Amino acid sequence: MSYYLGLDIGGSYLQLGLVTETGDLLAVRNRASAGGFTGDELTVAINEMIIDIKAEYRLVNTDILALGAGVPGHVDNKSGYILHTNNLSFNMYPLRQRLNDLSQIPVYLANDATLATLAESRLGAGQGYSDLVMITIGTGIGGGIVLGGKIYTGYNQGASELGHHVIMLNGELCSCGRRGCFEAYASATALIRMTKRAAEKNPDSYLAELITKQNGIISGKTAFLAQGQGDVVAATVIDEYLDNVAEGCANIINILMPELMILGGGISQEGEDFLQEVARRSIELAYLPAGQVPPRFALASLGNEAGVIGAALFAAECRADKIYG
Amino acid sequence: MSYYLGLDIGGSYLQLGLVTETGDLLAVRNRASAGGFTGDELTVAINEMIIDIKAEYRLVNTDILALGAGVPGHVDNKSGYILHTNNLSFNMYPLRQRLNDLSQIPVYLANDATLATLAESRLGAGQGYSDLVMITIGTGIGGGIVLGGKIYTGYNQGASELGHHVIMLNGELCSCGRRGCFEAYASATALIRMTKRAAEKNPDSYLAELITKQNGIISGKTAFLAQGQGDVVAATVIDEYLDNVAEGCANIINILMPELMILGGGISQEGEDFLQEVARRSIELAYLPAGQVPPRFALASLGNEAGVIGAALFAAECRADKIYG
Repeated sequence: MSYYLGLDIGGSYLQLGLVTETGDLLAVRNRASAGGFTGDELTVAINEMIIDIKAEYRLVNTDILALGAGVPGHVDNKSGYILHTNNLSFNMYPLRQRLNDLSQIPVYLANDATLATLAESRLGAGQGYSDLVMITIGTGIGGGIVLGGKIYTGYNQGASELGHHVIMLNGELCSCGRRGCFEAYASATALIRMTKRAAEKNPDSYLAELITKQNGIISGKTAFLAQGQGDVVAATVIDEYLDNVAEGCANIINILMPELMILGGGISQEGEDFLQEVARRSIELAYLPAGQVPPRFALASLGNEAGVIGAALFAAECRADKIYG
Repeated sequence: MSYYLGLDIGGSYLQLGLVTETGDLLAVRNRASAGGFTGDELTVAINEMIIDIKAEYRLVNTDILALGAGVPGHVDNKSGYILHTNNLSFNMYPLRQRLNDLSQIPVYLANDATLATLAESRLGAGQGYSDLVMITIGTGIGGGIVLGGKIYTGYNQGASELGHHVIMLNGELCSCGRRGCFEAYASATALIRMTKRAAEKNPDSYLAELITKQNGIISGKTAFLAQGQGDVVAATVIDEYLDNVAEGCANIINILMPELMILGGGISQEGEDFLQEVARRSIELAYLPAGQVPPRFALASLGNEAGVIGAALFAAECRADKIYG
């Protein structure tokens, strides 16, 4: 039997999956911590995970058709280089060549959110839709676009940086260096900033009390928790945050008008209420005259493994299309 | 010989073109004024133009394969309805059926900026590029997207409303009802607003003097003219305006990463200097790490006739693909 490997290079971990030709995930390995690695340390660590998974499943190299790698940034699948990552330091790094040298397995590269989108499109919330957009709301905001059933990456594979479109001219500084990006207003990081500011301004609120109980630690859940307890300050934070998320979603709808919008990432774990509220506000903001069917909204359904599954599917598609590798 | 008709339904005029099967424009008719018409008056006026052009070229109905119509708003080419226009009053109007009844010619509908983009893509500035975006900067901002050589309209034909993505949360009111749209910051209308405010704030400036000389009339050219005379107030207006145009362009690049960005519409008549300045600022703002080739920028080259040529090309493609009509 033949297999693909799917690799997700995250900010703080590496995840490797062994996937069948039909997209079934057989095994997953996690390893800390990509953030502290140099490019060559990263390559060695990936190869160790490959050796480990091959040993456990008694696989030889000819059993593995290819490896797909998801990178949180810009890659060039033609040259096999990681071009740039915002949060890691793998800039202009020839991952394909280095990993080829060690593992002797064909390697394909893509953006991580693009690969999660591919997985959701084929096996998750996007099954049956040919045109969809996925937005992953976590520490940052990533995105993926599927058009006509195919991943759309733009002519230089730099498209679908959905988190890096400005919704507030001269606004908050973004991780990308620009001001006012969607990511700077609608990521978990943005929500944490908004939560912190609101608590500082309202020291007598339940929100401030909750943060003190949490030893000053604020997460993307904090404001949602306080809102759930009826706190008005938190409710105001969530209301503004939902507006920000919806503004970005409405922008993407007006530009791309997909049939389906998938919300993924940590914040989407707030679940169905969050989804419905984002959908309602987005559709109200978007340019959708009477007579036009609005896009549907759905939560991502494959969870944390979407990245590795998508990476494996991508490797299979690149191999089938005989591109690069 | 066989021909197509291309129709451009503008805010203040109707333009009809007679086009050969290879896209050559043989004749153009203009007629005021679509803005004041009801849907049925519009249909009658279009049919009179068809009769006129048929008479002059001694054509019978079998010589005309189809008519494509560009509408400044949302249409449904499946049902043949104009769904909604911002500036006209043709909402939920069955243009295909009514025009079929009068003219006996197959009719296809699309957005006007989409059709101008199709024309530029096939015969103008976009020749040889398979992925491109055109932005038409006039009274409003329209846009068209070509991906893989084909016009992209989204699953309900409502995509590429590029002027209606918000770049300033809670900003200036837009014609679409939302606040802070690209159109509300980067259209000729926005530039006129900015020019007016700057002149009022600086009554001793050359800009204010020029407006007085123009009997109080401000156009999209006014600030450019005053800047050309060395006026500092006008230069500040143009600088801010160029930033606004570039922010929207950079957003579109980050989302779609086309190989080519085409600038069209009235403001693009400012020419090569305007183009180069928008390109420079957009590429600086966009998320383009080292190693990635930025999109090119070009001015639209077909002028005012892009709409009717694109409409005729669209009719030909719909007919070839046997869709609707």
